[in-house]
Amino acid sequence: MSDPVDPASILSVAALRLAADGSAHERREEVAVEAPFAIQLAGETLAMTMRTPGHDAELTAGFLLAEGHDPRGAARARVVKRGTLSSAACGVCGRDDIEELVERLAPVKGDTRFERAVLAQAMRRLPEHQPSFARTGGLHAAALVSAQGQFLVAREDVGRHNAVDKVLGRAALDGLLPLSGHFLVVSGRTSFEIVQKAIMAGVPALVAISAPSSLSIELAERFAVLLIGFARDGGFTVYAGRFRLEGAGE
Amino acid sequence: MSDPVDPASILSVAALRLAADGSAHERREEVAVEAPFAIQLAGETLAMTMRTPGHDAELTAGFLLAEGHDPRGAARARVVKRGTLSSAACGVCGRDDIEELVERLAPVKGDTRFERAVLAQAMRRLPEHQPSFARTGGLHAAALVSAQGQFLVAREDVGRHNAVDKVLGRAALDGLLPLSGHFLVVSGRTSFEIVQKAIMAGVPALVAISAPSSLSIELAERFAVLLIGFARDGGFTVYAGRFRLEGAGE
Repeated sequence: MSDPVDPASILSVAALRLAADGSAHERREEVAVEAPFAIQLAGETLAMTMRTPGHDAELTAGFLLAEGHDPRGAARARVVKRGTLSSAACGVCGRDDIEELVERLAPVKGDTRFERAVLAQAMRRLPEHQPSFARTGGLHAAALVSAQGQFLVAREDVGRHNAVDKVLGRAALDGLLPLSGHFLVVSGRTSFEIVQKAIMAGVPALVAISAPSSLSIELAERFAVLLIGFARDGGFTVYAGRFRLEGAGE
Repeated sequence: MSDPVDPASILSVAALRLAADGSAHERREEVAVEAPFAIQLAGETLAMTMRTPGHDAELTAGFLLAEGHDPRGAARARVVKRGTLSSAACGVCGRDDIEELVERLAPVKGDTRFERAVLAQAMRRLPEHQPSFARTGGLHAAALVSAQGQFLVAREDVGRHNAVDKVLGRAALDGLLPLSGHFLVVSGRTSFEIVQKAIMAGVPALVAISAPSSLSIELAERFAVLLIGFARDGGFTVYAGRFRLEGAGE
């Protein structure tokens, strides 16, 4: 017997599945909902977080408990809804200047098109750049790869976001921004923050081994990023920005 | 050809492997290092983060880039070392009151002992409580289970920490704290923050399907939490607090 699904936690989106056998299928995919939420105590915002809607009073109570506050303060919590992505919260708790983050974004430029085989091959080769994961099972990885398939830099970290920061930071220090001829490969899922970081570095494409959140798709679509998920075993699913995919243009 | 391992990213720890066939083996396990780091710009701390040591200048540059700062400000970054866990940073960027978090902690009380079979069975049953993950592949889960194996509450969220907050928040709202007769099951890895949240709720045991970080082990050991990782296929690995395990006491 399974628990029932909370309908607010799932969104159906249009996607393009490119299978390892070369076939392509338009289909609907269900993705996890990611949405901003303000954790408030007595009317004051303590933190902004990205969460899946549902059980918000419990989320607030648990957060307050961990912070040493009276969890019953949660009764006073409320969802801060502003309606648009321009007010989306960062996944990083504790900041309230998220709107600034999104307002600063501009669509990623450049007309590099990425080849299906190169994208799939990069994910296949990512484990070569995960030596610490191979020994511990406890780190995420990110890598920056050229449109021709050459690995520029790869980094591991316990934090998904840190691995991405290290990779993009290296490129920034080397004066390589904007990275319009490269794509980013990540070992985990994609969230708002991962896509936001890619956009700030001018990266036009993002390939993840696992699922995208609803908000990462929305952000990628709006700022012209090719967003790929479930890149495994030679196949992958395209969620946004497919005009950047060689041979699969709109 | 693989990239070389950064020695600072891995720590060897003592662990007890309990296999599905009933056997027990003392052995060394390698875990990913998690340690606090202050991201600073011109001498001012912008954020505290938990990261894997190595490439700290790149991490800072990438963080500054994503925030809209000049990434070359990273040249002025430095590691804030205070030497003890009592100064450990929260994984939540943006806060600098981490010491407070740890100073507030006290060893988890109660003498409930947990049975190997019950712990393994709870992880086996967790998928029944992950209906949204089954459809999207994009959410984490956490559950609170009694020492007798009864599921009290289970929640899913795009954020690992949120799932834990929702579960512990529910228990707090129901007046069930401290949770000395229950254990927490999580679908991902264990980090400083997950263990910190368990301690604040008085949860004496934590079972994860994946790897623990170095700091989560240190925190669990210090505050008397049974910490279990790689709980899969009927076996698991014990990293801390084994005096709470029935029949495997020290």
